[in-house]
Amino acid sequence: MATNNSQHISQQFEQELQDIRSRVLTMGGLVEQQLSKALKSLKKSDIDLARSVMEDDRLVNSLEMKIDEECIQIIALRQPTASDLRLVSVILKAITDLERIGDETYNIAQKALNLSENKHTKKNYSEISTLGNHVKSLLRDALDAFARLDVDAALSVAREAQEADAEYESFMRTMLTYMMEDPRTISRVLDLMWSARALERITAHTHNLCEYVIYLVEGKDVRHLSVETIEKVLDRNNED
Amino acid sequence: MATNNSQHISQQFEQELQDIRSRVLTMGGLVEQQLSKALKSLKKSDIDLARSVMEDDRLVNSLEMKIDEECIQIIALRQPTASDLRLVSVILKAITDLERIGDETYNIAQKALNLSENKHTKKNYSEISTLGNHVKSLLRDALDAFARLDVDAALSVAREAQEADAEYESFMRTMLTYMMEDPRTISRVLDLMWSARALERITAHTHNLCEYVIYLVEGKDVRHLSVETIEKVLDRNNED
Repeated sequence: MATNNSQHISQQFEQELQDIRSRVLTMGGLVEQQLSKALKSLKKSDIDLARSVMEDDRLVNSLEMKIDEECIQIIALRQPTASDLRLVSVILKAITDLERIGDETYNIAQKALNLSENKHTKKNYSEISTLGNHVKSLLRDALDAFARLDVDAALSVAREAQEADAEYESFMRTMLTYMMEDPRTISRVLDLMWSARALERITAHTHNLCEYVIYLVEGKDVRHLSVETIEKVLDRNNED
Repeated sequence: MATNNSQHISQQFEQELQDIRSRVLTMGGLVEQQLSKALKSLKKSDIDLARSVMEDDRLVNSLEMKIDEECIQIIALRQPTASDLRLVSVILKAITDLERIGDETYNIAQKALNLSENKHTKKNYSEISTLGNHVKSLLRDALDAFARLDVDAALSVAREAQEADAEYESFMRTMLTYMMEDPRTISRVLDLMWSARALERITAHTHNLCEYVIYLVEGKDVRHLSVETIEKVLDRNNED
């Protein structure tokens, strides 16, 4: 009877962990959708869409607070150890990154509103769309790696994030020359630069998600390491 | 004997919590010093100081990882509940904010390096110094409120952070007019704008620290609320 009981509790606990993981993925899906809408509002000067991104930021915030509370509850009631504790602690971190990604989509939507008031030209919009689509696909792949606990996929996203960073740097240099060539564009180009900066921040948070996957699966804290070093750390691990 | 033993364990646990709290304050002190040095490097075009800020970022990162690991250890071994668990969960969050503040001081130091190559004029440096000093004093007061678990002090920092945000907005508008008036300044003014943006981010993380103090003392999660709403929430609580 005691065994049945503890089996029952452990099954319940497993279910709770499953539920909370799937809620994180729901939050990730919402944030990905927010990014998609923010980029579209920028490209199409769609005021309504931009406003809906800004309004829906509340949903992201309240999901973060709810999941956060559930994690604390699980720690208090289930007293998880080892890999279960690792999962809960990673979820506590991941939802902070997701919430910040949500904040950055809010910032992009706000710039889209500014830019929609100034419709003379759509120059540069295609360049930021290219960067935006790249970042969006990185985020999707990182969430996918998180869902499948796939270290190789996480590493590949971390590698590609470096390319997105290089694209961002090149975008910023181009914008600087546009400003200098035609100072009448300064205000508009600045809004594009802030949007690009938001995309760069989203890439950084996406990179964090990849590090969490590696920590969950390999038990190694690889924060603040270059991708090359992470690869070495993991290879060394494989050779052990 | 059993009682003595459990008393002994509980004293040990208390000591561990004390140690970890004081380590967070050490990390806070280090980050505060980094901000101070970054601002000075900006003001004095001090290349060596800027480089030392960028190098010391590693110390901040490694402190974050160490404290993070200690928190997970405490959860695994001591299985804290109620206010102890609240403290550990807040520390896990607070060190992320402190680490990000460290990252922003790195960004400011990097801009100081850029600006030092371009010494023609020091125009606008005094304006960013004013903003910087304000943000620095907010961070110091927030760390103080955290050390003393002082809700009133935390609320007062949160209120004053709004003024710093208004100063930041006004600074950005002024910089925009400078750029437009004299396009030769664009590159330099952009570096100042990025530095100001870093200061704005530091204010946001400082604000988070204040919310943690309120959560620790009052048990209320006040994230994503305006200061006015937080005051109402706490007043209502006082009237209960």
